[in-house]
Amino acid sequence: MKLKPLGDRVVIKQLEAEEKTKSGIVLPNQAKEKPQEAEVVAVGPGGVVDGKEVKMEVKVGDRVIYSKYAGTEVKIDDEEYIVLRQSDILAIVEQ
Amino acid sequence: MKLKPLGDRVVIKQLEAEEKTKSGIVLPNQAKEKPQEAEVVAVGPGGVVDGKEVKMEVKVGDRVIYSKYAGTEVKIDDEEYIVLRQSDILAIVEQ
Amino acid sequence: MKLKPLGDRVVIKQLEAEEKTKSGIVLPNQAKEKPQEAEVVAVGPGGVVDGKEVKMEVKVGDRVIYSKYAGTEVKIDDEEYIVLRQSDILAIVEQ
Amino acid sequence: MKLKPLGDRVVIKQLEAEEKTKSGIVLPNQAKEKPQEAEVVAVGPGGVVDGKEVKMEVKVGDRVIYSKYAGTEVKIDDEEYIVLRQSDILAIVEQ
Amino acid sequence: MKLKPLGDRVVIKQLEAEEKTKSGIVLPNQAKEKPQEAEVVAVGPGGVVDGKEVKMEVKVGDRVIYSKYAGTEVKIDDEEYIVLRQSDILAIVEQ
Amino acid sequence: MKLKPLGDRVVIKQLEAEEKTKSGIVLPNQAKEKPQEAEVVAVGPGGVVDGKEVKMEVKVGDRVIYSKYAGTEVKIDDEEYIVLRQSDILAIVEQ
Amino acid sequence: MKLKPLGDRVVIKQLEAEEKTKSGIVLPNQAKEKPQEAEVVAVGPGGVVDGKEVKMEVKVGDRVIYSKYAGTEVKIDDEEYIVLRQSDILAIVEQ
Repeated sequence: MKLKPLGDRVVIKQLEAEEKTKSGIVLPNQAKEKPQEAEVVAVGPGGVVDGKEVKMEVKVGDRVIYSKYAGTEVKIDDEEYIVLRQSDILAIVEQ
Repeated sequence: MKLKPLGDRVVIKQLEAEEKTKSGIVLPNQAKEKPQEAEVVAVGPGGVVDGKEVKMEVKVGDRVIYSKYAGTEVKIDDEEYIVLRQSDILAIVEQ
Repeated sequence: MKLKPLGDRVVIKQLEAEEKTKSGIVLPNQAKEKPQEAEVVAVGPGGVVDGKEVKMEVKVGDRVIYSKYAGTEVKIDDEEYIVLRQSDILAIVEQ
Repeated sequence: MKLKPLGDRVVIKQLEAEEKTKSGIVLPNQAKEKPQEAEVVAVGPGGVVDGKEVKMEVKVGDRVIYSKYAGTEVKIDDEEYIVLRQSDILAIVEQ
Repeated sequence: MKLKPLGDRVVIKQLEAEEKTKSGIVLPNQAKEKPQEAEVVAVGPGGVVDGKEVKMEVKVGDRVIYSKYAGTEVKIDDEEYIVLRQSDILAIVEQ
Repeated sequence: MKLKPLGDRVVIKQLEAEEKTKSGIVLPNQAKEKPQEAEVVAVGPGGVVDGKEVKMEVKVGDRVIYSKYAGTEVKIDDEEYIVLRQSDILAIVEQ
Repeated sequence: MKLKPLGDRVVIKQLEAEEKTKSGIVLPNQAKEKPQEAEVVAVGPGGVVDGKEVKMEVKVGDRVIYSKYAGTEVKIDDEEYIVLRQSDILAIVEQ
């Protein structure tokens, strides 16, 4: 089962301590204190959203910082995700 | 009796545990804990909504995740539905 | 005496149990529990409303579902009506 | 003394029971229970209001239904009026 | 000392009972009960305000009705004035 | 050290009683009761602000009346200033 | 690890007393009382943000004054930063 976000929406998964990202990087312990850091797991197509052209700038696998309280939590197959608009993503964390 | 939504509105029906979708898939038990998952039962024509062109991206039969508290509950022929705008649909669940 | 709504406004009349619609259909009892179902009794001309072109999509005689708390109740010749914007009408109920 | 409304504003006067309209019609008693019915006494020129073209659709002498709590009450020469925007007028009452 | 309002702002001075207007008219006593009536003492240039073209329609000396609570009270040389946007002026009182 | 405001922002300094303006005018005592009067000390470049072209109409040295509670107080080198948008400036006080 | 802000976002770091800026300037003690002064550490690309073209006017190394409570605090590698929109930056402090 897979989520296909609509419009400018992005599905992210919060990073947990010691979890491996897809690229195999082991995240350090202090990740436990960074609840706004997450990995992008699905990206909407963008296009015209609320009458305005939106170009998607994040891609699956990106680690991102996002606005606290933004988006909606969903649970799929016992995994928890957050669905938010790209505009609620503040920055990409480069490694 | 049938609902014909106006503009960018969509009629959805919440999925219940063990319920069959139109494609015959039996939903697992944990569906009871996913109150934001629903099946699309009617889709408005889209077009110019509030001065902005809206293209409908969901279709009847799609399983979708939607914003909690979005939309209006209506009861037709003893069945409960939710009528919401397409922009309140977060993602399509692909199977 | 007749109401002529301005702009994108629509005048509706709530359906009551056992009441006949213009087409002669007797509504079943559970209509008492459907306070958001109504019949359209007058439709504004549409046109430019708040700087945006609005095309009217409902017509007199349509049975519609509308947003709870939307619109303004008015009493004309001892009959109660609701005047609301077309955008507060969620769907047309087809019979 | 006369009020000349600016932009899309309209000056109305609430109808009272037994009061004669300009056309000589005596309003019935139940008018006391219709606080949202009024007669138009002055109409602004319309034109560009808040960056949007507004065409005036009501005229002096029209009986109208208006949004409760809309507009501002003013007292001129011991007479009370309400000044509101045309968009707060819901419908014209045709006789 | 003189106030030169910016954009679509207008400086008005509340009329007091028995005060003479510039045209020499003595206002009757009930003016004490009309706190929303004022005389225009300075008018901004209009032009593009908040991205929209605004044309000034009031002029110095006009008597106007304005929205209660609109604008900001200022005291210049021991005289009290109100600075508000032209859109908070409801109507011009013609004499 | 100098403040260079961004966009349509303006830096002002509240006038105090008996303080000299740049042109040497000694302000009278009642200035203590005029907390909304200030002198412009820096002006942003204007240009496109929030998608709208803004032309700056105040200049350094202007005495202005501004909206109470508008803007942000900042302290630079032990001097207190207010940074606000030009649209929060109501009028220029001409001398 | 590095933050790459999206759109018109800017990453800033609050200045602390006696801290050296990149240009080697030692900030004086009263900086402790200036919680709204910060140094820019990363700048987004600008471009079309919420349907409006935004040109970035701050650059890495700029000292800026910003709106209290604006933005989101994030902690990366034990350092605290604030991510905000350029429009929440009030002024550049020139030295």
